[in-house]
Amino acid sequence: MKFTCQKQELAGALSIVSKALSSKPQMPILSGIYLRAENGQLELEATDFELGIIIAIDAEITQPGQMTLPGRYFQEVIRKLPGDTVSIDEDSEAKSVRIQSAAANYTLRTMNASEYPVIHRLEGDLHFTIKDNVLRSLVKKTVFACSNDESRPIFTGVYMDIDQNTVTMAATNTHRLAVKKETFDAPIGAMKLIIPAKVLNELLHILTSEIPSDVEVTCSLNQVSFAFENIYMTSRLIEGAFPNYRNVIPQNLTVKVEAATSEISAAMDRVSLISRANDYNVVKLDFHDEQLHISSSNPDIGQAEETLPVAIEGDAIQIAFNATYLVDVLKALDGESCVISLHQPLSPITITEPDDPDFIYVVTPVRTAH
Amino acid sequence: MKFTCQKQELAGALSIVSKALSSKPQMPILSGIYLRAENGQLELEATDFELGIIIAIDAEITQPGQMTLPGRYFQEVIRKLPGDTVSIDEDSEAKSVRIQSAAANYTLRTMNASEYPVIHRLEGDLHFTIKDNVLRSLVKKTVFACSNDESRPIFTGVYMDIDQNTVTMAATNTHRLAVKKETFDAPIGAMKLIIPAKVLNELLHILTSEIPSDVEVTCSLNQVSFAFENIYMTSRLIEGAFPNYRNVIPQNLTVKVEAATSEISAAMDRVSLISRANDYNVVKLDFHDEQLHISSSNPDIGQAEETLPVAIEGDAIQIAFNATYLVDVLKALDGESCVISLHQPLSPITITEPDDPDFIYVVTPVRTAH
Repeated sequence: MKFTCQKQELAGALSIVSKALSSKPQMPILSGIYLRAENGQLELEATDFELGIIIAIDAEITQPGQMTLPGRYFQEVIRKLPGDTVSIDEDSEAKSVRIQSAAANYTLRTMNASEYPVIHRLEGDLHFTIKDNVLRSLVKKTVFACSNDESRPIFTGVYMDIDQNTVTMAATNTHRLAVKKETFDAPIGAMKLIIPAKVLNELLHILTSEIPSDVEVTCSLNQVSFAFENIYMTSRLIEGAFPNYRNVIPQNLTVKVEAATSEISAAMDRVSLISRANDYNVVKLDFHDEQLHISSSNPDIGQAEETLPVAIEGDAIQIAFNATYLVDVLKALDGESCVISLHQPLSPITITEPDDPDFIYVVTPVRTAH
Repeated sequence: MKFTCQKQELAGALSIVSKALSSKPQMPILSGIYLRAENGQLELEATDFELGIIIAIDAEITQPGQMTLPGRYFQEVIRKLPGDTVSIDEDSEAKSVRIQSAAANYTLRTMNASEYPVIHRLEGDLHFTIKDNVLRSLVKKTVFACSNDESRPIFTGVYMDIDQNTVTMAATNTHRLAVKKETFDAPIGAMKLIIPAKVLNELLHILTSEIPSDVEVTCSLNQVSFAFENIYMTSRLIEGAFPNYRNVIPQNLTVKVEAATSEISAAMDRVSLISRANDYNVVKLDFHDEQLHISSSNPDIGQAEETLPVAIEGDAIQIAFNATYLVDVLKALDGESCVISLHQPLSPITITEPDDPDFIYVVTPVRTAH
């Protein structure tokens, strides 16, 4: 295997593919990055058996082939290289590869490429195409609500309900729920899957190209893949049945409050500075007379309070929440204003956006001493 | 105590003074920042008993006084505040202080100000004034050579030898030595002290104003202080006698090599990527035929090598070093080229700069298997 390519392009590809390198690989070979050079393309692969990434870049290939290199070292070496082009030349007898750019020469030992669990492109039962910004919005407005608790795996993933003309994503940690729906012009089939939050967070990081692009989504019974530009991502699915979350969306809420999202988000962030040191991270919200008064206190540190103007329809109400559950959703919103709908101090509330009728967030309040 | 000041100015002052807050304070009161408001000035103080910092900013004082606030919370609250001006109003009966800016209100519990070990400005035996850039160069070119080993305290500090028209700073970890001298127009007295490296590193961070300024240095038997602009830093000294480092500076070196500092620094950084995983982090240097060949190897990972043009006076020589001891000094140099002077593969070498005759670095090579 022998090829030459642009250093910056290779370094960029490695920074993406290495997101699938586990820090504690299940097998030694998974610490490697698999390379395949053929037909003017260099493909790089990495997987931790949950997430797999393939990325292809242009290369001038003198001798096609496959090999596996120690992932972290390969990435660091390429990142540090001087010069614009890098040439890579395998010595299969010596089980090593020579990496050369300007005056710098590295020799890295290769790993056994035949042991590498090469990623197979998914031939799924269901395919659809979605705009990158639409997919980003589906993920961004739900994934933060997942749980980190590995003892209940289904809550560590986002539920994706594909139902002909709609795709709905939902995530919950049982104390809060985020649901976002998108409508398609043509029916795309029906399927239900749970995708690991970790994979969707990596997708959000990678899916940031400034040029709008199409993402091809392919789903099977136990896998999903996302293909866009020169990148292919595949993920195992989480097994299990997602609970019927629609039941927990409260109806007939009697108080409606409209607030400026950026103002309430910044105020909540400041007030929670004091509550963060508490066990339950509690902030109190007091809605009355067209004002929202947010406060928190900690006997050892002090108190924080802030008042902002809001539009209230309904009675005055006092209610308390885990601050994280409010701060997180407010950061995920993208419209100018949000609507908080409430009923009673111990009933779940919803947060919605006038600009996005297809999003809803539900959070359960906490009981406070007074 | 009651005052109003500019939020940005207070936040900037807190980011400097908090460098003297210990993460594990010896006494609870040392987790606090002491404030004194009088004569249109707000003074902020913090100390961990080794390093003490006082910084003064303008404030509109309605009621002068002193108080102590929990350091980390005070810093975070001020940093997060909205608005341009902050007003601070102590309620001494409630043992709390109200911090207000725009719509945000915080109440922080105060600490007992009378317990605070207020920093006394040093009335030393020796004073001198030095330009900030001259002091910065003295520190930057020596402090990196200190040891981290707390079991031999004198090597965790930089030796400062004030001798009439010269100030010499020297630091060693017994394997390497860095010495830098500055000459003054008028005699400034004589004194020898050892200043903790940690304090000098903080001084380097703080001493970065873009406007050239004078630093007033005051020395006593067990303390040193640096005063510049609105900042006063004081440090305890390390007790003990610094060894006579002049003995270890090798004379009669027979090989002289001149190299471009940025080239050799970048090459060394790249080659040491492979050696870093080794116990002794060894890089080999091979000087011959107007070339420097730098290499390192690790049986598990591979090899790195790089060749650069240099000017050699004397015989060809092969020698090996702990890579860190070369990488560190090359980063501290500021001239275009450096001179490496050698004698034999197991004799100490020196690194100097043609542009700075008052700097010398000595490092002992390591023995290698072949």
